[in-house]
Amino acid sequence: MGCETSLVADPGPTAVATATAKAAKTGSSATALAPGFRFHPTDEELVSYYLKRKVTNKPARFDAIAEVDIYKHEPWNLSDKSKLKTRDQEWYFFSLLDKKYGNGGRMNRATGQGYWKATGKDREVRHNSQLIGMKKTLVFHSGKAPDGLRTNWVMHEYRLIEEELERIGALQV
Amino acid sequence: MGCETSLVADPGPTAVATATAKAAKTGSSATALAPGFRFHPTDEELVSYYLKRKVTNKPARFDAIAEVDIYKHEPWNLSDKSKLKTRDQEWYFFSLLDKKYGNGGRMNRATGQGYWKATGKDREVRHNSQLIGMKKTLVFHSGKAPDGLRTNWVMHEYRLIEEELERIGALQV
Repeated sequence: MGCETSLVADPGPTAVATATAKAAKTGSSATALAPGFRFHPTDEELVSYYLKRKVTNKPARFDAIAEVDIYKHEPWNLSDKSKLKTRDQEWYFFSLLDKKYGNGGRMNRATGQGYWKATGKDREVRHNSQLIGMKKTLVFHSGKAPDGLRTNWVMHEYRLIEEELERIGALQV
Repeated sequence: MGCETSLVADPGPTAVATATAKAAKTGSSATALAPGFRFHPTDEELVSYYLKRKVTNKPARFDAIAEVDIYKHEPWNLSDKSKLKTRDQEWYFFSLLDKKYGNGGRMNRATGQGYWKATGKDREVRHNSQLIGMKKTLVFHSGKAPDGLRTNWVMHEYRLIEEELERIGALQV
């Protein structure tokens, strides 16, 4: 079953190379916001501010999003890894995407006890009407593909599109 | 006309006596939250935390709500008075209620160019299932009652009920 929750992952497949480095951070050092304050970023804010700054190594005004290897954890263990202790059942992470086969487009989305499966079509994320990223929604299935059992765990994955990575210089070596 | 906006006022008719004292605070010193962060308190948080602390003179963890005499301003001038500079068209204020006639229950809700008129029934605000406050919704009408023109400005007014004021000792002299 699992409760009705959602995770938001912000993978930058090309540039976020340090994704697992700080994954050992525990929930005990999480920041609790004052009553009434919430971290409710729009898709545009997540991609144009947080993900872009991450990829270009610029600090954010508030260090709100932890780096975690999403696929090294089961969804119910992720809340502990969040930098923000929220009253909402929603958490935000940066995670490095793990390509299944060298240079193919398919990602390895299995965890120890299940796998994340994409659902629906990717949606565009725009900033000042310019396309800068895509949003993919995934549902956690417990067990082994293709016989896993659908759960209520939902993840929204945001990525910068290649053109935007080029524009901001994140594809240069 | 006016845009689709809402104000939230937190009047404590008995105890918030300093309501107008700091109303001269200008918007220029307002705090802008980091991207993605919003002040989206629930009714319960507004009443059980912010209003109750205000009435009992306890500081809030974050000084998020300015004291303003709501009825000394037209709604479109209020955003300037907010302590938080938000991207949302919603502002929060503490305001002292102004009784129309000495000890009657009716409030004076006129501004210079119009008046706030209650709409619908007051709703209960509960904390741990105990009734602690009421929420009233008002719509701004421009012109003079009863011939004012309805606008899109909406205010939600929260107050502590008498029993709660007694419980927290705010009615004692």
